[in-house]
Amino acid sequence: MTEATSNTSGNLIAADKVDGTNVYNVAGEKLGTVEDIMIDKVSGRAIYAIMSFGGFLGMGTKHHPLPWSTLKYDVLKEGYIVNLDKKQLQDAPTYDGNLEFKWTPDYGRTVDSFYKTTSYWN
Amino acid sequence: MTEATSNTSGNLIAADKVDGTNVYNVAGEKLGTVEDIMIDKVSGRAIYAIMSFGGFLGMGTKHHPLPWSTLKYDVLKEGYIVNLDKKQLQDAPTYDGNLEFKWTPDYGRTVDSFYKTTSYWN
Repeated sequence: MTEATSNTSGNLIAADKVDGTNVYNVAGEKLGTVEDIMIDKVSGRAIYAIMSFGGFLGMGTKHHPLPWSTLKYDVLKEGYIVNLDKKQLQDAPTYDGNLEFKWTPDYGRTVDSFYKTTSYWN
Repeated sequence: MTEATSNTSGNLIAADKVDGTNVYNVAGEKLGTVEDIMIDKVSGRAIYAIMSFGGFLGMGTKHHPLPWSTLKYDVLKEGYIVNLDKKQLQDAPTYDGNLEFKWTPDYGRTVDSFYKTTSYWN
């Protein structure tokens, strides 16, 4: 049990309820909302947050996988902050939220490489 | 990035899809299914799996929070194994799945203490 996972103040949340948490950039602009979390089944670690933005009633929604390490939770804003401007977001890996999407190691590496994070994938 | 979280074989799963994963005891008996995961919003670590069992069409379902560290994922069974017999399960902390349940640090400590795991709560 590391310090990062011990707490007294109730940061525990049901995975089902993370859906809809807002994501902001450092300027405080809302970029989107968390749609789902990709976790490692064995370790129980969140590896990616799937951020959705755009669309209307689910139509035309784009999904942006963000490596978990790029997100910081802001208690006051009750949302995640990611150091990413809107221009960068336009170039970021994305997939159509309405299609059945098959996650592959290659896709994961593309995402990790874009965000220059240590890759989850070997 | 620790070894436990690096992989090549696709253990990544959407949190939404963990729902329904079977939980077995070491004798191979099915104890229940994962209903939800409680995660730490900041670190992204799964802290408890909420296992449901019993009931019919959602009526009378009991929810059992299991500290994540008590679960081992079994790739062949495609489910989690927990070292717990049915007798122990009868005495384990549980709550009614049909009521709105408010998770408190005290409740978390009760769970951690029952399973003799390092507590998430200070």
